[in-house]
Amino acid sequence: MTTSSHSSNPSSPNQTSGMWGGRFSEATDAFVAEFTASVQFDQRFYRQDIAGSIAHATMLAKVGVLTEAERDAIIQGLGAIQAEIEAGHFEWRVDLEDVHMNIEARLTDRIGITGKKLHTGRSRNDQVATDIRLYVRDEIDAILQLLQKLQKGILSLASQHTETIMPGFTHLQTAQPVTFGHHLLAWFEMLFRDSERLVDCRKRVNRLPLGAAALAGTTYPIDRAYTAQLLGFEGVAENSLDAVSDRDFAIEFNAAAALIMMHLSRMSEELILWTSAQFKFINIPDRFCTGSSIMPQKKNPDVPELVRGKSGRVFGDLMSLLTLMKGQPLAYNKDNQEDKEPLFDAIDTVRGSLMAFADMIPALLPNIAVMREAALRGFSTATDLADYLVKKGVAFRDAHEIVGKAVALGVQENKDLSELKLEQLQQFSALITADVFEKALTLEASVQARDHIGGTAPQQVQAAIARAEQRLEQLYA
Amino acid sequence: MTTSSHSSNPSSPNQTSGMWGGRFSEATDAFVAEFTASVQFDQRFYRQDIAGSIAHATMLAKVGVLTEAERDAIIQGLGAIQAEIEAGHFEWRVDLEDVHMNIEARLTDRIGITGKKLHTGRSRNDQVATDIRLYVRDEIDAILQLLQKLQKGILSLASQHTETIMPGFTHLQTAQPVTFGHHLLAWFEMLFRDSERLVDCRKRVNRLPLGAAALAGTTYPIDRAYTAQLLGFEGVAENSLDAVSDRDFAIEFNAAAALIMMHLSRMSEELILWTSAQFKFINIPDRFCTGSSIMPQKKNPDVPELVRGKSGRVFGDLMSLLTLMKGQPLAYNKDNQEDKEPLFDAIDTVRGSLMAFADMIPALLPNIAVMREAALRGFSTATDLADYLVKKGVAFRDAHEIVGKAVALGVQENKDLSELKLEQLQQFSALITADVFEKALTLEASVQARDHIGGTAPQQVQAAIARAEQRLEQLYA
Amino acid sequence: MTTSSHSSNPSSPNQTSGMWGGRFSEATDAFVAEFTASVQFDQRFYRQDIAGSIAHATMLAKVGVLTEAERDAIIQGLGAIQAEIEAGHFEWRVDLEDVHMNIEARLTDRIGITGKKLHTGRSRNDQVATDIRLYVRDEIDAILQLLQKLQKGILSLASQHTETIMPGFTHLQTAQPVTFGHHLLAWFEMLFRDSERLVDCRKRVNRLPLGAAALAGTTYPIDRAYTAQLLGFEGVAENSLDAVSDRDFAIEFNAAAALIMMHLSRMSEELILWTSAQFKFINIPDRFCTGSSIMPQKKNPDVPELVRGKSGRVFGDLMSLLTLMKGQPLAYNKDNQEDKEPLFDAIDTVRGSLMAFADMIPALLPNIAVMREAALRGFSTATDLADYLVKKGVAFRDAHEIVGKAVALGVQENKDLSELKLEQLQQFSALITADVFEKALTLEASVQARDHIGGTAPQQVQAAIARAEQRLEQLYA
Amino acid sequence: MTTSSHSSNPSSPNQTSGMWGGRFSEATDAFVAEFTASVQFDQRFYRQDIAGSIAHATMLAKVGVLTEAERDAIIQGLGAIQAEIEAGHFEWRVDLEDVHMNIEARLTDRIGITGKKLHTGRSRNDQVATDIRLYVRDEIDAILQLLQKLQKGILSLASQHTETIMPGFTHLQTAQPVTFGHHLLAWFEMLFRDSERLVDCRKRVNRLPLGAAALAGTTYPIDRAYTAQLLGFEGVAENSLDAVSDRDFAIEFNAAAALIMMHLSRMSEELILWTSAQFKFINIPDRFCTGSSIMPQKKNPDVPELVRGKSGRVFGDLMSLLTLMKGQPLAYNKDNQEDKEPLFDAIDTVRGSLMAFADMIPALLPNIAVMREAALRGFSTATDLADYLVKKGVAFRDAHEIVGKAVALGVQENKDLSELKLEQLQQFSALITADVFEKALTLEASVQARDHIGGTAPQQVQAAIARAEQRLEQLYA
Repeated sequence: MTTSSHSSNPSSPNQTSGMWGGRFSEATDAFVAEFTASVQFDQRFYRQDIAGSIAHATMLAKVGVLTEAERDAIIQGLGAIQAEIEAGHFEWRVDLEDVHMNIEARLTDRIGITGKKLHTGRSRNDQVATDIRLYVRDEIDAILQLLQKLQKGILSLASQHTETIMPGFTHLQTAQPVTFGHHLLAWFEMLFRDSERLVDCRKRVNRLPLGAAALAGTTYPIDRAYTAQLLGFEGVAENSLDAVSDRDFAIEFNAAAALIMMHLSRMSEELILWTSAQFKFINIPDRFCTGSSIMPQKKNPDVPELVRGKSGRVFGDLMSLLTLMKGQPLAYNKDNQEDKEPLFDAIDTVRGSLMAFADMIPALLPNIAVMREAALRGFSTATDLADYLVKKGVAFRDAHEIVGKAVALGVQENKDLSELKLEQLQQFSALITADVFEKALTLEASVQARDHIGGTAPQQVQAAIARAEQRLEQLYA
Repeated sequence: MTTSSHSSNPSSPNQTSGMWGGRFSEATDAFVAEFTASVQFDQRFYRQDIAGSIAHATMLAKVGVLTEAERDAIIQGLGAIQAEIEAGHFEWRVDLEDVHMNIEARLTDRIGITGKKLHTGRSRNDQVATDIRLYVRDEIDAILQLLQKLQKGILSLASQHTETIMPGFTHLQTAQPVTFGHHLLAWFEMLFRDSERLVDCRKRVNRLPLGAAALAGTTYPIDRAYTAQLLGFEGVAENSLDAVSDRDFAIEFNAAAALIMMHLSRMSEELILWTSAQFKFINIPDRFCTGSSIMPQKKNPDVPELVRGKSGRVFGDLMSLLTLMKGQPLAYNKDNQEDKEPLFDAIDTVRGSLMAFADMIPALLPNIAVMREAALRGFSTATDLADYLVKKGVAFRDAHEIVGKAVALGVQENKDLSELKLEQLQQFSALITADVFEKALTLEASVQARDHIGGTAPQQVQAAIARAEQRLEQLYA
Repeated sequence: MTTSSHSSNPSSPNQTSGMWGGRFSEATDAFVAEFTASVQFDQRFYRQDIAGSIAHATMLAKVGVLTEAERDAIIQGLGAIQAEIEAGHFEWRVDLEDVHMNIEARLTDRIGITGKKLHTGRSRNDQVATDIRLYVRDEIDAILQLLQKLQKGILSLASQHTETIMPGFTHLQTAQPVTFGHHLLAWFEMLFRDSERLVDCRKRVNRLPLGAAALAGTTYPIDRAYTAQLLGFEGVAENSLDAVSDRDFAIEFNAAAALIMMHLSRMSEELILWTSAQFKFINIPDRFCTGSSIMPQKKNPDVPELVRGKSGRVFGDLMSLLTLMKGQPLAYNKDNQEDKEPLFDAIDTVRGSLMAFADMIPALLPNIAVMREAALRGFSTATDLADYLVKKGVAFRDAHEIVGKAVALGVQENKDLSELKLEQLQQFSALITADVFEKALTLEASVQARDHIGGTAPQQVQAAIARAEQRLEQLYA
Repeated sequence: MTTSSHSSNPSSPNQTSGMWGGRFSEATDAFVAEFTASVQFDQRFYRQDIAGSIAHATMLAKVGVLTEAERDAIIQGLGAIQAEIEAGHFEWRVDLEDVHMNIEARLTDRIGITGKKLHTGRSRNDQVATDIRLYVRDEIDAILQLLQKLQKGILSLASQHTETIMPGFTHLQTAQPVTFGHHLLAWFEMLFRDSERLVDCRKRVNRLPLGAAALAGTTYPIDRAYTAQLLGFEGVAENSLDAVSDRDFAIEFNAAAALIMMHLSRMSEELILWTSAQFKFINIPDRFCTGSSIMPQKKNPDVPELVRGKSGRVFGDLMSLLTLMKGQPLAYNKDNQEDKEPLFDAIDTVRGSLMAFADMIPALLPNIAVMREAALRGFSTATDLADYLVKKGVAFRDAHEIVGKAVALGVQENKDLSELKLEQLQQFSALITADVFEKALTLEASVQARDHIGGTAPQQVQAAIARAEQRLEQLYA
């Protein structure tokens, strides 16, 4: 994030960068130096930068550009720098612009002239593209773990509630009874698609740009396949101009992240509704809630509210990256430096939100009696009555009309269908007989009758949970 | 698109819909009827609606809910309706709300009471989800074909220009010479990722929601796997609540579409630059251009400009869908009706843009001499001079400094490096000898030297084209 | 919107445009002609185009570029064309590209060579900018009228409910009692800001670009101030390059439209909640609702759901325009043709949504007893108890703690504060005496006590309504 | 920004907040405490929080809720805390959630029980709304100053180049000659609208929400008008529910910020084009540029590239806020805490970008000869030739056709119009005589002839600069 204060630029005001100053006749303006630097935020992937450099040096030694001794000195030096950073002893300098130059400059400090040879056959353009891909790959793996934890938590809760009946809603109007376990499996499906998408995205992240150098490749006899293998990439980027220009992987990741947040926003909406005084379907344990500084009675569902709100920032992060890339001519442009913060923000937001949900969801406390009571209201078995008539030979559209009139009577008398008398029901159709109450108008009959793959019948929900566990095992194998 | 005029609502003002009016005591407001109807835009997928209904009827007959005679009457009726629509004889009625009810009402007109049985065991909620998935699947296939045509056009042009030299740019500053063929392959790579993404997206589109009914499944003994097989779906949606609520596939498609348009916007930017009087790298044939009503000399690159602009609408379409789904509680809500127009707009925009580009790109006329002349300017071989010094034992960072000073002299004397005298170059490093002009400072040497996978050397570009052709064959197998 | 079918291009395939074909050696490709044409959607502002042309001709005659006879012929011809269009007799031709050329060509058909003189001293670049500004200005005025109607409807409903008590929510948890009238005034405030913003936006829309010609001005002795006066513009655009490039007014309008839709989405969310079986705070008359094709009992709040969903498309329209303009060099580029559809879509969506709300809101039927009952639950007077203690000398933070404990007891005993016994309350603070029930724990006392500008006390709500009516009068004066 | 690490939560794990823990039976989860806290980013407006508290205490004393001694103790204590913060001695605690509670807790530490009285008659809901409005107001004022500096820089540069001729472009094709000063004034107009929009936005920011308390107002006899006056607000928010829910001002600001960045992206695009080897219209001083780590010759226009890229993040910030607010029921929800970071990011980005541009633009070094040379190419005077013919009696459309053919000849012979021979020109129209070269085909004649308000004639540009200076004085009076 741009800082609004810029008085404390540590760069020496009288020098241009030692990395490229040869042709310049004037020092970089101090504010410009800070404005254009990225080390404030790209130091985040120092580990990937060092790993990439070690692989590059190893490859350069293999092809004879570095000696083995040079390679070893470089690797040892980078290891020491990583230790410095992790111990908090590394001084990040804005005048050195970015994580790459900070580390390289320190390397030369430590090991002398050999350090300057590390940059042979590469450019910051392909270096940063490599680092960021390694970083995103690591983050995808971490997010997949969090997703899995949440998915398992959902399955665990669902397995306790395959017979817990609640009203299912469409248009937020009572529609038909469903089981709470069935509802939870809908959440599982959303998140499972998110996992699938990340797995697909990861394939396209996991290609090595290194070797593209500035834009055209390098004159050194590099072995890109070897570097790719060292770093665990599945292949190499096929075209050097594209390799340094491409930020598709970041956009594709952010789009997947936006979908995750959209799903969490829907789950959040439901949790907020369900904890309201009007629904009271669930309690969220106190440890996930906060209170009010003024209203002593409040217990607010902060976590879902915040996560619902955070969907906005991830949608915005996606738009930022798309706008960033719109209309850029090839190859690398400085604009691309702006790829990082929207990507980092999406990653952090998704991770934090999943972490909170993975803890909270399995701890939800459903109010089973309240849910059941709600399902009994709202004519939730009206469709069942229509189906009952159809089975007695009425065309569906006609049955629908008959039941609609019965409902209108119920609204008028403030009674649910099961509370109307048989005679009252029969005035709409003589085909209705006493068995209607048991066969169509109980919650259990209604739920039980939806007995096919994807339906809400308890045995179907149990089977779906079993399949879901298998699918998780396959995906995360 | 909402229409601002709403005086001509053909619905009868005194009636609610025959499909659901039983419980209503008041007719729908005429403006509301039009405002909430979707038939104005969802008639677009009448073909998918009919195909879905035929499969549904076939399945219902298989499981015994319909007789074979009923099934046949329905299928024949639907076939006749499709013919009516395609002949332009079908009267779409806003009072029948949507494509589904229009077709079903017409079916009952034609075949009588049997028509009313078609809707058994399904709801509009799962019906529309099925239709739209079928529609998107068809459109993905069509877009993949257009992408392939464009990809082949790029390869064809590239194969003619593996030795055509142009300046490669970073920061829109001359960077290093590249071949035009190599540059074109960067475009190919962008678009190839787009194809991969659509293939991945298609898997998630291609799952059957039918059977979810309104939200909870149905009480009829349906066979969803059979319906899926009839319609070419790869599997069934696992959860009924999710099946009617999920619009991930539309968002994932629109995100892929946004990336396609982003890529086309970058290609467009380059085409616009290259046809300017300042670049003159290419000509676009007159048939892809238009003129000015006031300036007689103008020949404007309309197609790339328009496509660059159209990236905006597809980004917006993506944002529309994400916002639409944010915070929606399960299951189906009327909000979801708004999924269609942003999806259709993205589809149409991508198709039109790809169609225009697939025609235009292979017809581009590069000005080879102008490109070469431009590559000779701008010190494009400066990196080669640095590499030349490195090969003579100078550390890269020091070589960079030496060349930087030589460039500063060139700027001052208004000469490129190859135009400086040997003595002038030698004042920066005694290691520079007469072979520098041939080994480092010619365009051919520069290009030739980047001889590794992904590099710009002509033989690498030829090999890359060959690999690209194979990859296309595999992807589109 | 791009059409996916393009077989029916009516343009003659062997000709380039008569308007600019002089330098072209090849006819425009038929698909390109359609792809780049705008007449499919810009015919929408034919009225503004004709009004602009009449003003232009009048000005040209004033400065002597046209004779009075020529002016009169042009004006008469344009009037006849307008009549043709409005009678549905005008044939729009895609080969004539846009609304401007269609009308101009028809003018020349009708009045001969004089028609060709109309374009003197202008270009399509400044012509379209003028048309679209006139169009947006008209639409802003229409939207302001719709907003006013809705605002008045809200005030009318509020004035009936200044003493109707409902629970106020924060975090969707019961917070404090408020009056329904007070809640409605919050909606009024949102919409009033929308009106203010449109009034501000209108000032910047209402400046004349005509006279900028293609980009640099014209060589004819035009009188821009006179044209501005004829068309009701408040001033002229100060710089010709900017005048043809600027689309700020469209973006500013779309941003204002996005805020309107955001507000309507919040009102919609509340209406959807309030009509749920769990809240039951209001009924929406049947004429604004629709039913379900499968569930006979359903009465769905379609209008608010749809409007909530439509917020997405207007957010997307805003994003489209911002992306469109990002990074465009001056002056006019073909990209700008893409400004229209996102603008039109935002206009139509806002108009339709406001029209629906302006009808529906005053017809809402609040369930006063249900609202009151809900306010009695949820410890809504807890803050009042804390304030009661503060007035007896307890520091607020301590009072908050005391009441928090009383609430915990209430939760445990499933009783509201007013249902606890005095002794129970006194165990938390001896300062609580028998007057607490009347002074702090009744809904009326709670509401009545918030008696300052902006507070929910009935007399304050009445006063706020009176001020709101005055503010409306001033704004719409 | 959410932090991905959350191990170092300083909150005591066994306690809920002292501010609201009364009804809670379980401590807040440590991760949840950090995830839901805002002090990490809202400490940024500590100054506004303290100013708001001082005004609140002053008002409370005026109406008798606080004694004068209490007021003075509070004000003194807050002053001391501000000094602590600014000296870097203040310990921000995540367990105290936000800036408000951190400061209030410290106040009670310092002045004892009186500190607890400060929160009387307000809530964090209205407090944060007040703080953020004060903050945005201050930032608007700062941005207006930066805009003014940049606007003056543009006028200063423009005033040196009222006669410097360059090609004007449409479609990035040479269109007509313009003066460089005229082009710069187009930039001025864009930015002037930005200033106008901020001034309008500021009116709506500058209204006092304090007094809304949690959502319904307060039972204390507050004087909101007095508080408003103390804090420089122009009025009070009229409705308490709206006052705590409204974030329009943040969205309106971010929309204005998005337009600023869009304008800067267009200026950036031009600067990037103009510094390319192909255009060479301007040089940017070295101090605003950086080099390449691999290509020694590079001097990259980093500042405009980065600013062009940064437009994306501000567009994204706008989308974040719109999405955030979509569909939120009244009144305050925790979601709203997410309003800050997208707002801060937009503010910082706009400030940094304007600061960089305000320094850079007046320092641009135009290459006058190169610009002139470019204007001579590309048939930039073709329109003038058409106008020349019109003045000799040819209808404009016919003149356009004649010149189009002359241009086609020029393209064929690789000559500009002024380089064709008179006889060659005459073959297209006998009305062309020898005076054509002087009257129509010189750059000076072309520019000079566009002599009306908004036109590019030097005297018009001078007059426009004078008017612009006056407009600045009025706006910033």
